[in-house]
Amino acid sequence: MNSFGKIFRVSIFGESHGNGLGIVIDGVPAGLPLTFDDFNNDLGRRRSGAKGTTPRKEADLPRFTSGLFNDHTTGAPLTIQFENTNTRSKDYSKLRETPRPGHADFVASKKFGGFEDYRGGGHFSGRLTLALVAAGVVAKKLLKGIAIEARLIEAGGMNDIETAIEKAVDNGDSIGGIVECKVNGLPIGLGEPFFDSIESVLSHMVFSIPAIKGIEFGSGFRAAKMTGSEHNDNIISMDGKTETNNAGGINGGITNGNEIIFRVPVKPTSSTSKKQRTLNITTGKVDDLEVEGRHDTCIALRVPSVLEAATAIVLADLMSQEQQIPRTLNNN
Amino acid sequence: MNSFGKIFRVSIFGESHGNGLGIVIDGVPAGLPLTFDDFNNDLGRRRSGAKGTTPRKEADLPRFTSGLFNDHTTGAPLTIQFENTNTRSKDYSKLRETPRPGHADFVASKKFGGFEDYRGGGHFSGRLTLALVAAGVVAKKLLKGIAIEARLIEAGGMNDIETAIEKAVDNGDSIGGIVECKVNGLPIGLGEPFFDSIESVLSHMVFSIPAIKGIEFGSGFRAAKMTGSEHNDNIISMDGKTETNNAGGINGGITNGNEIIFRVPVKPTSSTSKKQRTLNITTGKVDDLEVEGRHDTCIALRVPSVLEAATAIVLADLMSQEQQIPRTLNNN
Amino acid sequence: MNSFGKIFRVSIFGESHGNGLGIVIDGVPAGLPLTFDDFNNDLGRRRSGAKGTTPRKEADLPRFTSGLFNDHTTGAPLTIQFENTNTRSKDYSKLRETPRPGHADFVASKKFGGFEDYRGGGHFSGRLTLALVAAGVVAKKLLKGIAIEARLIEAGGMNDIETAIEKAVDNGDSIGGIVECKVNGLPIGLGEPFFDSIESVLSHMVFSIPAIKGIEFGSGFRAAKMTGSEHNDNIISMDGKTETNNAGGINGGITNGNEIIFRVPVKPTSSTSKKQRTLNITTGKVDDLEVEGRHDTCIALRVPSVLEAATAIVLADLMSQEQQIPRTLNNN
Amino acid sequence: MNSFGKIFRVSIFGESHGNGLGIVIDGVPAGLPLTFDDFNNDLGRRRSGAKGTTPRKEADLPRFTSGLFNDHTTGAPLTIQFENTNTRSKDYSKLRETPRPGHADFVASKKFGGFEDYRGGGHFSGRLTLALVAAGVVAKKLLKGIAIEARLIEAGGMNDIETAIEKAVDNGDSIGGIVECKVNGLPIGLGEPFFDSIESVLSHMVFSIPAIKGIEFGSGFRAAKMTGSEHNDNIISMDGKTETNNAGGINGGITNGNEIIFRVPVKPTSSTSKKQRTLNITTGKVDDLEVEGRHDTCIALRVPSVLEAATAIVLADLMSQEQQIPRTLNNN
Repeated sequence: MNSFGKIFRVSIFGESHGNGLGIVIDGVPAGLPLTFDDFNNDLGRRRSGAKGTTPRKEADLPRFTSGLFNDHTTGAPLTIQFENTNTRSKDYSKLRETPRPGHADFVASKKFGGFEDYRGGGHFSGRLTLALVAAGVVAKKLLKGIAIEARLIEAGGMNDIETAIEKAVDNGDSIGGIVECKVNGLPIGLGEPFFDSIESVLSHMVFSIPAIKGIEFGSGFRAAKMTGSEHNDNIISMDGKTETNNAGGINGGITNGNEIIFRVPVKPTSSTSKKQRTLNITTGKVDDLEVEGRHDTCIALRVPSVLEAATAIVLADLMSQEQQIPRTLNNN
Repeated sequence: MNSFGKIFRVSIFGESHGNGLGIVIDGVPAGLPLTFDDFNNDLGRRRSGAKGTTPRKEADLPRFTSGLFNDHTTGAPLTIQFENTNTRSKDYSKLRETPRPGHADFVASKKFGGFEDYRGGGHFSGRLTLALVAAGVVAKKLLKGIAIEARLIEAGGMNDIETAIEKAVDNGDSIGGIVECKVNGLPIGLGEPFFDSIESVLSHMVFSIPAIKGIEFGSGFRAAKMTGSEHNDNIISMDGKTETNNAGGINGGITNGNEIIFRVPVKPTSSTSKKQRTLNITTGKVDDLEVEGRHDTCIALRVPSVLEAATAIVLADLMSQEQQIPRTLNNN
Repeated sequence: MNSFGKIFRVSIFGESHGNGLGIVIDGVPAGLPLTFDDFNNDLGRRRSGAKGTTPRKEADLPRFTSGLFNDHTTGAPLTIQFENTNTRSKDYSKLRETPRPGHADFVASKKFGGFEDYRGGGHFSGRLTLALVAAGVVAKKLLKGIAIEARLIEAGGMNDIETAIEKAVDNGDSIGGIVECKVNGLPIGLGEPFFDSIESVLSHMVFSIPAIKGIEFGSGFRAAKMTGSEHNDNIISMDGKTETNNAGGINGGITNGNEIIFRVPVKPTSSTSKKQRTLNITTGKVDDLEVEGRHDTCIALRVPSVLEAATAIVLADLMSQEQQIPRTLNNN
Repeated sequence: MNSFGKIFRVSIFGESHGNGLGIVIDGVPAGLPLTFDDFNNDLGRRRSGAKGTTPRKEADLPRFTSGLFNDHTTGAPLTIQFENTNTRSKDYSKLRETPRPGHADFVASKKFGGFEDYRGGGHFSGRLTLALVAAGVVAKKLLKGIAIEARLIEAGGMNDIETAIEKAVDNGDSIGGIVECKVNGLPIGLGEPFFDSIESVLSHMVFSIPAIKGIEFGSGFRAAKMTGSEHNDNIISMDGKTETNNAGGINGGITNGNEIIFRVPVKPTSSTSKKQRTLNITTGKVDDLEVEGRHDTCIALRVPSVLEAATAIVLADLMSQEQQIPRTLNNN
């Protein structure tokens, strides 16, 4: 359940307020050079600190606990771990009996019989996306000549995102947003009609990112209002380039050589400073609830690096399956 | 690639204009009663004939070629097959050199080196959803007390769907639509935070249905414009019922006991009677193209039964994983 | 459960006395030429008829029901099916209440709650090895330059196998045997230390063949009586050739460039003309039992072609994983 | 590749002389009590120290880095790690150019292009069985009422094992042995005819243990010399008990309610103090080789606890698949 992929295969583990978290990456070709510096950019983008994100700060230094030797991958499983150093679990312990609306507290308690690590969301925490970003860094390095770029294109219903965040901070409430991801440079032919269409495997991974409520490719929901002659992308060159890109770079579940483009809506952070109402599972009564702790005003701000990572992980696996990534890198 | 599921596991095969198509279902508990009549309703809903769907008609009688004995499943793989009896492949053969816009013709040729069965879309054909619907019938029978209902809620941008179809037929063009699916009666606790959230596995399967361009759960894309205090669903009873259902019945990737609700946009049928333009891969020039053959005006009309089947297949697997479906049914 | 493989992936289905049986092979590269004639040799070797094998004869003609077009594989799932035409199920029906010793009758009834197709062993029947042999034919065609050869090296404890069979036929009892398999031409580097050592995946598949009781690689059980200096194979050339081959062509779970060699013991056919004793599950008493029907005196005689097929299926998958088999065959 | 299992699923990582090693166990039910003390016995049995085993000593204290909370499993992935504290890699570095006979040095270098961590066998090292034993401890705790017992029944061709070891130590050479494993208390019905027979999955895992050269179930290789009437086990009671147990507790790949019994030959340790000959891959010439470092005289002495662990891991997965282990343990 906590693994994904066929050749480039990740297994995630860890909790928000336990010892730490990590990811085992199987199927990384031997010979990929890898150092701390490779992780700086994407971990930095994900890290809190910008306006609208949580004040919790972690050093978030990756530790390579297996699969790396002389600064190159060895072909054995690559394990990357992060410690939890700045946890304040007292913030959360009293939430046991009043499950936070919008969070997994209630379902986790039901699913795991009360044995779950409930501190800060435990294994459900958005902090685990740190492991995804780390695996994404490795995946991106394998995807030579392929550009993956995600950015927040809308927040709180506005395109001027800075203003949207300021308004939300003033308002003491959280807001949602839309993140768009574009991939260029992919070969034609990735994906399978059944059941591993490229939309299938991308969406499978993308919905592992907390707070994502949907996904659409190319024309997406707009397609429902279009006619066939409007929607069809005419093929105009031997490399498959099309006049328009309503397909979002995909036909029949297969990459068609055009830009892959998809968008995801991100819900507003569930934890807000506003008062809410929830069940007290001890008394069985509905109570007011104030969620303390440190929260993001707009979690969507931190999604782009995670979405890129999720995309890169999927593509590294598909490219490995299609033999576009060799099993050993001799010339790095 | 052509298999899906962990316990209740389907493997699909076949082509639109070859001998036929079928599906092998592994992990079906022994002892499920199964007869032809079980398939009538859903195969009928999927079948062509209604206004706006293709005039191609197949008897579409399921053949049980393994795993059934004395009208009960045996616990061995259940194979259901359909013959192709009404194929007119001459319609399609000349399309080899002019790949149809919006179809998989071009990518299939690139991916499979020209060896693909190109007749009628071959393995990419929407006809393969027949196998999905058949597997869905079996899955639904295992999901006692669980109601899955999908319906077309919008076509061509209109809620009055009959009028929309009439307009499109008059116009000689195809139109898209939106299909909504609701599931009631599920237990709390299906799904995993990583990487098998219920959104992950549902979307994985749903994007195997041709023409689907996106998916959204609960509030979906609207969530991006909401605030946290608006979006959060307050828990109001010990069985997890919430005041609102923006979560679409899912928190942290896990079912929360409320109605599961999701929507998918369906693109307009790529084949229309309108003239289009595409590359002639022999001459390398862009030509006009008229797609002959029999086509659906609004393929979305046929999606509801397929979407229900896809949903049922996923849920039968998750319910099996969670030990909510026994390995042998003794009391049927 | 009824599937095996990661890239070259087989899914088996069918019963001994039902409609038939078959196998879906996913991950076959597009462009492999394939005709009936390719199957003659191995199906013939497996087929009954020789002294010591069952008089049941089936035409056993393969039907290609998907994935083949213009005598070449298409890259879509390849389905090969066989009909059952010569079944005499009355032989078997009375065995319901007296499960045959050495057969799966008793465990099948317990596992599947009495819903199993018990006729002739149903899904447990050795007849399903027909599907394995068919898949093996496809696998062998992909393994260019690789020679897989299995032969019966001992029967009834004797090396003169013809004499052993004659004695057994005279004696009215069945006998066991040992089959040895050799593979030449493999590249160095197939297999993984954990958990997919080449011994792991070969034995996994080999134990799907009914009647196999063990497996040993290279020195096998003799290794237990050897010293390290006797057992070690000294490496003597840059291509990894060793002086001796106690390793059986495998070090650390990985092919080492020498001949792969392994042996399997095959138990005597469980059905013999001799009287036996078993439980009557209706009366709860132990009764005498005479197993009628058509039986092999030495089932081991038919194992070599099946063992080769099992080996070829595994190797086709490993070679695909190691990118030694391309995804599309352009030059066939 | 480094993962095994369907529900109770292990992912192994680490090296002999790197930072350490570990195992991620997915699918552990929530609510299993777990403390350091649970690991003492099996880790102690595996640990070096007894006559005939290597003098290398590690504290080998397990660290629980995820999935444990308040001394109970949480249902999230359980990670158990071990540090490497007592490594002397200078022993091994000069072996780079003279691959040790019987070891994976040569194939690892070929497979991973020279990027492998070659120190002490790296990821191929027998030290990784520490992780298997740890996972086995967890698995055993889930297998209530099931007894798994492995023991060395023969070493250096002798049943008096102590004498055999003394002789070998005097002789300065290593010796092999045979380990037998018995499992009692299993329900009838575990395993599948294709392709997950219980022999298939057990052997798959068992061949991940270094130095294992074969496996046989019940009568094993002796079956090849028996007649059917000798070999068949007559069923004598309603719970499936048989008069004899040539089947080793398995029919048709399924547990039959009798004792599971299987044996594995263990080759003599490849590293001995005796002089050997191997290729110098720099000069291309065959040289004498003296393997320094610390070695086991009879590695088979340490196999029983590892074999039990491997067996327990497989059975915990099969029992989970058969719903004999619940997803949450409420009453521990």
